[in-house]
Amino acid sequence: SAMPDEPHSTTRVLSPESQMPVTHFSRRARWVGDQAIGFLMQQAVENRDCVSLAAGLVDEDTLPVEATRAALDSMFADTYTGRAALQYGTTAGTEPLKRALRDHLAHLEGRDLGDLDLDSIIITTGSQQLLALLADALFDPGDICLVAAPTYFVFLGVLDGVGARTIPVQTDTGGMCPQALDAELGRLDAAGELDRVRLIYVVSYYENPSGISLAADRGAKVVELAAKWSKRQRIHVLEDAAYRELRYDGPELPSIWSFDTTRESVVLAQTFSKSYSPGIRVGFGVLPPELRKVISELKGNRDFGSASFNQHLITHVLRTGRYHVHVERLRDSYRAKRDSMLMSADRYFSGIPGVSWTRPHGGLYMWMNLPEAVDTGFHSDFFRLATRTEQVMYVPGELCYPTLCEQRLRNQMRLSFGVQSADSIDEGMRRLANAVRKALQ
Amino acid sequence: SAMPDEPHSTTRVLSPESQMPVTHFSRRARWVGDQAIGFLMQQAVENRDCVSLAAGLVDEDTLPVEATRAALDSMFADTYTGRAALQYGTTAGTEPLKRALRDHLAHLEGRDLGDLDLDSIIITTGSQQLLALLADALFDPGDICLVAAPTYFVFLGVLDGVGARTIPVQTDTGGMCPQALDAELGRLDAAGELDRVRLIYVVSYYENPSGISLAADRGAKVVELAAKWSKRQRIHVLEDAAYRELRYDGPELPSIWSFDTTRESVVLAQTFSKSYSPGIRVGFGVLPPELRKVISELKGNRDFGSASFNQHLITHVLRTGRYHVHVERLRDSYRAKRDSMLMSADRYFSGIPGVSWTRPHGGLYMWMNLPEAVDTGFHSDFFRLATRTEQVMYVPGELCYPTLCEQRLRNQMRLSFGVQSADSIDEGMRRLANAVRKALQ
Repeated sequence: SAMPDEPHSTTRVLSPESQMPVTHFSRRARWVGDQAIGFLMQQAVENRDCVSLAAGLVDEDTLPVEATRAALDSMFADTYTGRAALQYGTTAGTEPLKRALRDHLAHLEGRDLGDLDLDSIIITTGSQQLLALLADALFDPGDICLVAAPTYFVFLGVLDGVGARTIPVQTDTGGMCPQALDAELGRLDAAGELDRVRLIYVVSYYENPSGISLAADRGAKVVELAAKWSKRQRIHVLEDAAYRELRYDGPELPSIWSFDTTRESVVLAQTFSKSYSPGIRVGFGVLPPELRKVISELKGNRDFGSASFNQHLITHVLRTGRYHVHVERLRDSYRAKRDSMLMSADRYFSGIPGVSWTRPHGGLYMWMNLPEAVDTGFHSDFFRLATRTEQVMYVPGELCYPTLCEQRLRNQMRLSFGVQSADSIDEGMRRLANAVRKALQ
Repeated sequence: SAMPDEPHSTTRVLSPESQMPVTHFSRRARWVGDQAIGFLMQQAVENRDCVSLAAGLVDEDTLPVEATRAALDSMFADTYTGRAALQYGTTAGTEPLKRALRDHLAHLEGRDLGDLDLDSIIITTGSQQLLALLADALFDPGDICLVAAPTYFVFLGVLDGVGARTIPVQTDTGGMCPQALDAELGRLDAAGELDRVRLIYVVSYYENPSGISLAADRGAKVVELAAKWSKRQRIHVLEDAAYRELRYDGPELPSIWSFDTTRESVVLAQTFSKSYSPGIRVGFGVLPPELRKVISELKGNRDFGSASFNQHLITHVLRTGRYHVHVERLRDSYRAKRDSMLMSADRYFSGIPGVSWTRPHGGLYMWMNLPEAVDTGFHSDFFRLATRTEQVMYVPGELCYPTLCEQRLRNQMRLSFGVQSADSIDEGMRRLANAVRKALQ
């Protein structure tokens, strides 16, 4: 019964809320979008009794407390070295660590790298920071990145955040298919889009999420194809080798980087987050000459360089050999967990038709295909069934495909054996199989 | 005598160089430009006998070796806490550190902050990372930031890197002038540009480079003006309080943040790089509610969070009180150095007409004006005279003005008393005065 011109009504129309200034966020801020990882962590908090096969964390029990304590004792045994660890370093990283990394890389590559320019090495806050810096350096909105499908979902978020177009390339048990990569680049060339292609992204060892490695004969082909299609503009390859050192069996595979004889095309990204400690956050990259200055300047604007303290620590554990002892121990521990997950998969899932999974030789992840009818997404019945009824958590496979990807499959899961004990892995897999059986009823 | 169609000639025209694919860098990569800091470091390497009054490093002798050793011993005294320091944290930072920071801030502010939401605090890799994240979140190319002139040159580089337009506001011995800020915002409104203004950047305590602090009665005015001109779109204030704790004398000044009673407008950025250790790289910010999610997501894409190890370390030194003992000692040490520089300035420069300088109550920097005829830039005669002939290094003042700034003065210098001993400061100032006298001959 109130008249439209009554004060009450006016007040509601011109409420204080409608007068509030709004914050204009940058396009980058809007592109960054909701991060799946945030949703997953929220789910973990809301479902505390869940067995999480989702978390990508490393195993708490194997964190190198003894080795770190010894390194810290040594760093702070005298005031001079203590001070050095507490002072600023340089943006690209400390020279002693770069030297240690060159030796470490030579060990991994199984060849002498005395000719590797120390200036090609950059130290970052985990390898994640290098991935983000490279995206900053190369991508304007609309530029193109080619990726395996599925691939590491956090990097897909980084690409979204710079407005890149992400194009999936067909992937099989040997990783990204060179033939499909060649065809896709040809298609882009024909469409007049070749000059927008900046990067081919490959997780070469025990990929997060699939556990798949790039086959031994494909690295050279990826390098060749990057060169072949670098007609007017250079197409770089980003080799994400985060899980390289977590090899449990199977052959030692060559890096893609090892085939880049001119060292002009491949960016190699590695990290100590998985093989030593994620709390230290030391990663590193090897960069082609062209990219060094730009990446270092972009990093300078962001943080002046990663903490020198942490760099001194990693230098110590590398130089004393404690790092290698630790990695051996870690491999034994994760190998046993990987075996547990495979055994439990055989035990609980072999009887369910239409379910298959990878048998990873390293890393922290197994990839599972469910029957097509089972949608595993966050808002699916199956997700609710798994997390609420059966109390087990996984990462929906669809997150690991580019957003606008036709090949995106909805019936897959990433399962991690990193965090849980062998018993919990078994219990988690049992619950997950129950959820699948119920979904199929 | 070679014919144009001879192979030799053809080869030269179509040389391998001209066929090489070029790397397309993003606009951001191109905007980042040459960093003055890189040039300065190169100069330092090339002129090793120089007394550097340029370097912004902290004093090596006062780095907290004892306090850090004690904290590390405690962190690694048991396996449980050792592991916690080696595991991933969360993107926004560990909760124990956030609690310690709230108490620390309450101590600095001199009032209870029990009502401060822990979610408003974010831990970053130095405060520099927060500055860069905020620039990412707010600025599209062409958006506007208002700054004091002169101001912190590294942030000017960050603004250039996101394509922002940086507009200087008149500054006097009390810092940024509120009247001039009001007038500038009014001018932008009249020009239809108000909706492009995102941020007012103020280094509130002992500004790098000038040593000037924002006068006690100006903080409230800056907050008022940000609110007044937030007509349709919110204008945030970034208070960079990096040097806040390095107070040697003069009044305790209120933060700008303390006047933001609704906590919707001011971002407060602080760091332990100056007051504890730059090698640890722990900074933090207090964010308005609107910005928390975006900043955290942008940070998530970049590094998943700063090293939790370093956060545990800072938590320890804060909680045990070792931090405050250290800061007291640090103040005494820097106060003496500040006094040395002032004394040397009086001794060597009072006789030179047209030279004046600030008398900072804190921080690491003094600002010096030379006669107008003396250009101090990297390519000036005076720079060569100082670095090559007299062997003393400074930061040219012009770097501390926005690139396209009419107010940019070329006859100024930033002089740091952070790194050098009292004797070296005196020697550096003596050499600098010699250079000035020679330049004026």
